[in-house]
Amino acid sequence: MIPVRKAIKIIKSETRVLSTETIDLRDSIGRILAEDIIADMDLPPFDRSQMDGFAVQSKDTERAPVNLKITGESIAGKGFDGPIKSGETVRIMTGARVPGGADAVQQVESTRALNENQIEILKAAKPNQNIVRRAAEIGRGELIFATGEPVTENMIASIASFGYAKVKVAHQPKTAILATGSEIVDVSEKPAPDQIRNSNSIMLEALAKRSGAETFVLPIARDEISNLKLQILEALETNDVLLVTGGVSVGDYDFTKPALRQIGAEILFEKVSLKPGKPAVFAKFGDKLIFGLPGNPVSVAVTFCLFVRTALLAMQGARECELKKGFAVASEKIKGAKERDSYLPVLVETNDRGILTVASMRFGGSSNFIAFARANALVFVPQNTALQAGDIAQILYLP
Amino acid sequence: MIPVRKAIKIIKSETRVLSTETIDLRDSIGRILAEDIIADMDLPPFDRSQMDGFAVQSKDTERAPVNLKITGESIAGKGFDGPIKSGETVRIMTGARVPGGADAVQQVESTRALNENQIEILKAAKPNQNIVRRAAEIGRGELIFATGEPVTENMIASIASFGYAKVKVAHQPKTAILATGSEIVDVSEKPAPDQIRNSNSIMLEALAKRSGAETFVLPIARDEISNLKLQILEALETNDVLLVTGGVSVGDYDFTKPALRQIGAEILFEKVSLKPGKPAVFAKFGDKLIFGLPGNPVSVAVTFCLFVRTALLAMQGARECELKKGFAVASEKIKGAKERDSYLPVLVETNDRGILTVASMRFGGSSNFIAFARANALVFVPQNTALQAGDIAQILYLP
Repeated sequence: MIPVRKAIKIIKSETRVLSTETIDLRDSIGRILAEDIIADMDLPPFDRSQMDGFAVQSKDTERAPVNLKITGESIAGKGFDGPIKSGETVRIMTGARVPGGADAVQQVESTRALNENQIEILKAAKPNQNIVRRAAEIGRGELIFATGEPVTENMIASIASFGYAKVKVAHQPKTAILATGSEIVDVSEKPAPDQIRNSNSIMLEALAKRSGAETFVLPIARDEISNLKLQILEALETNDVLLVTGGVSVGDYDFTKPALRQIGAEILFEKVSLKPGKPAVFAKFGDKLIFGLPGNPVSVAVTFCLFVRTALLAMQGARECELKKGFAVASEKIKGAKERDSYLPVLVETNDRGILTVASMRFGGSSNFIAFARANALVFVPQNTALQAGDIAQILYLP
Repeated sequence: MIPVRKAIKIIKSETRVLSTETIDLRDSIGRILAEDIIADMDLPPFDRSQMDGFAVQSKDTERAPVNLKITGESIAGKGFDGPIKSGETVRIMTGARVPGGADAVQQVESTRALNENQIEILKAAKPNQNIVRRAAEIGRGELIFATGEPVTENMIASIASFGYAKVKVAHQPKTAILATGSEIVDVSEKPAPDQIRNSNSIMLEALAKRSGAETFVLPIARDEISNLKLQILEALETNDVLLVTGGVSVGDYDFTKPALRQIGAEILFEKVSLKPGKPAVFAKFGDKLIFGLPGNPVSVAVTFCLFVRTALLAMQGARECELKKGFAVASEKIKGAKERDSYLPVLVETNDRGILTVASMRFGGSSNFIAFARANALVFVPQNTALQAGDIAQILYLP
């Protein structure tokens, strides 16, 4: 039995980075950047007005009210070159270029129109007032986002601003999903008394997609080793990663590990100090990765987030492959397990004093996946210990 | 100028719920449930073993070690009906049905094989040990998820378990996106000195999709009112919602509101006590919704999250249409604006004592959208006030 830390280290060291492709920016949400995003221009590209009003020499307005001569207009898309001289002003729109010679913009509300060529500035304008200076946000050549960052909705505007209509990203790991077990029936079927529906494949499909994978769900494998070996070998031919659920315990009908050994896969770990998820298996076949995950859905979800997600992101060259860490205050006792570390799905919430609190969820067994649907983090409880109310707990945010 | 609260109330009251459709569960992530998800069976459907081992009458094992006669086997998919009698046991696998008569499972590690028909139980088994009782997780007919909840990756396994290979969800609001401004050029173009790239359309496309919309990006509209009116009317013919960016101020070249008035749209608000985003416009044309958003990307993002997202989710019948509220502790002074409420993009983080802290981001103008890319919340600062270090701030989590 190895600690979770060690298991993650093994996964990272055994994972190769995939090649890259160039795709439309609009399709890049959730993908991992394979190039730095660099500013190809200053932002703003010129001294920019933040208001509708009049571009002035601030000195002229010191003894406001004062009349100025309107010598032109600067609008978005069609700036006024200037320069303006003392006693002159230029009508200017929000977002437009501040003409040469001007060092402030007085907003239209602080002016009074006299005639077509004359404006009365009612209040003094301070130097730099209502102007965002050229390159104040970013200078040409500066790094905006780095290789290895995932593209998010909130980053899209910045990337687009610098002309990246297409971006270079890592290829998606091709990931096959194989549920095993003679008792498993398809979601659309009505299970007989000893059967259960295959909820794992569709969950893994959703989780793997969110981690950037391209997924292929295979037909359910029965508890029969020769067929299982065939299905595994076939899946590994066309995929980078294979996820097998079920059959990883040591029971007489647990064929996943025997099948992996018989095809010649190298088993890199097969027991983790982890609750839920102790029987998680990690193996390699050439440079293809194989994960054997326990059959119950909460164990599948937890081992996916700790192990499979890390591998999928590492294959895409992501800088952050592991769940984000944080701290929360236990609002009640949370018991750990004997002889293995717990990573329990929990709902963390801030209270009205800004403190992040964590309480245990109702888990009948490790199979209570209905509670899991509400979880937003895993709480870490070291083996043979319990968190007491008020203790600071380490948490890992679910993605 | 109306408060943000009031603006949201107007949007909600003017929004109709769309009709529904039935789609594959695997395509339902991010969609809003239009039916209750009900357990169609008990979970577990039978008394289930949590271990590989032997099903026993616990009384028999009180004076362990004790020899029991093996009368059968219960495996996943093929249970043993029982009942077992005193002195008897049944070999059982993890996940398999506990036979009638047995009230405990002793794990295989606490047993010793004697011969094919005899097992020695080494340790006493307590009643209920290693058994999850039928319906312990959920009973048939119970509500799992309710109409109006968004489907998440973490919910998928639960929904699948109850046979929902397809789910009923609200239709996606068809949403057209129209950037205006003669200074705006396509992302793939190199802007001339007074031009900027159209980063708003692609950002709105990403944000609207995340809120469940089906999006259509229209060609950039020039600052010319007759054409703008045509584009608006055309977009409203085939869409439920139209998002217009830019042209909502009161400048001479701000044609959005005049265009809306001239086509006969009803403007329901056009100025909000909000920084960034004061000039946000909400209008209706028949039952089509129109949002006019300020041109700069951070204002677009903030007004989208406060207003447009609320409308899109309300149209899908979502229970929670607004950004999730929380509280965080200010780690430095955060200044509000004069005469309007601020909703500033910020990065909230927990410190090592589990306290959620909030600091301001570097914002040159309201246009610093590079900082926005890192934001995960909006912090609320009431007008004419400032948050001081240590104050508890109200935050809204970005989706």
